[in-house]
Amino acid sequence: MKVTERSELRRLPKRGSHDSAVIHEILDAGFLAHVGFCAEGQSFVVPTLYGRMDDRLYLHGSAASRMLKHLDRGVPVCVTVTLVDGLVLARSAFHHSMNYRSVMVFGTARMIADECSKIEALRTISEHLIRGRWNDVRGPSENELKATAVLELEIEEASAKVRTGPPLDDEEDYALPIWAGVLPLELTPKPAVADARLASDLQTPEYVLRYQPGRK
Amino acid sequence: MKVTERSELRRLPKRGSHDSAVIHEILDAGFLAHVGFCAEGQSFVVPTLYGRMDDRLYLHGSAASRMLKHLDRGVPVCVTVTLVDGLVLARSAFHHSMNYRSVMVFGTARMIADECSKIEALRTISEHLIRGRWNDVRGPSENELKATAVLELEIEEASAKVRTGPPLDDEEDYALPIWAGVLPLELTPKPAVADARLASDLQTPEYVLRYQPGRK
Repeated sequence: MKVTERSELRRLPKRGSHDSAVIHEILDAGFLAHVGFCAEGQSFVVPTLYGRMDDRLYLHGSAASRMLKHLDRGVPVCVTVTLVDGLVLARSAFHHSMNYRSVMVFGTARMIADECSKIEALRTISEHLIRGRWNDVRGPSENELKATAVLELEIEEASAKVRTGPPLDDEEDYALPIWAGVLPLELTPKPAVADARLASDLQTPEYVLRYQPGRK
Repeated sequence: MKVTERSELRRLPKRGSHDSAVIHEILDAGFLAHVGFCAEGQSFVVPTLYGRMDDRLYLHGSAASRMLKHLDRGVPVCVTVTLVDGLVLARSAFHHSMNYRSVMVFGTARMIADECSKIEALRTISEHLIRGRWNDVRGPSENELKATAVLELEIEEASAKVRTGPPLDDEEDYALPIWAGVLPLELTPKPAVADARLASDLQTPEYVLRYQPGRK
């Protein structure tokens, strides 16, 4: 992965990587991105779903969206995806930390005009979120497609940061009578809630029953 | 809460709020923020822990952090906190959505110089993350304090967005034989993993055993 000043790893570089495989794996394990852009010196950070195909991310939203229209001007975008894996409870306040995987992507985005490419990108986002769903649902009508903006963001540069494992305390603190360890956290699916207007003979699909965030 | 163009709710304003109580509740339920700022036209979005006290957010990191030094110049910051509550699976691809709570905060940040205020802010961040921990651990030494930068961000403006409930399909789609509903997602603690170097007679604290993200 290309590296310039903006994607260079400065703080704790040992936790970082510019390896495409690591970056793709984290992007595929997540589904929520925080998209950052600047408008007249003011930063905006907007949460949004996304999909990935090779070195491209897809974002979508309303064709009336302020963010998507702004991004289409070709402004530099930063897309950050963060997965929380646990709280790291050290013996000292100072060494408390978080186990996490995160990726920061830099690039510019362009709206997809071609209808077929747009449907393909929407399918990518949908399958990224919950694999198997797209083929089950009513696909987008012409009007719905017109009302939807889909952006393609070429990943120009990216970096990953990962922390795993136990707390790392100062050697002299290990003797202190203070509990220390990791409290793992996981985004977990709860039983699906069928829509109240669902016909009673419709079974919950397997891909809903077996859904695990990040399992593609 | 003050509202100007940057915090005005445009897309789906019915999902939005400028009510301080709503905003504070979401900020208190989360612990991970995505901090956005601009440097020479390039946007950066950095995941970080935070704490809240009244209308102020606290961020911390290494005194050598590029982000914290940059923010201390008084640049406009956008801090976004997003909590994912579930996937909304509609009958049409178009009406798929996510149940979530998010807050976008606008403000400027300043480093805290005074040592007592700095410790107090670190305590706020720690208690925000896991209540009860601070009193159990070794507090920061003078050198650790020097190595830590703590920023106070006054919440100048903020907006919240919340989506709850079932999918909302087009009326004619309700008759389609397509499963629809909500797949709730929750950040869930798994059993704590004690540090391998822990003295065997140290009990896991109650606040670890009973930890629930967002329960303050």
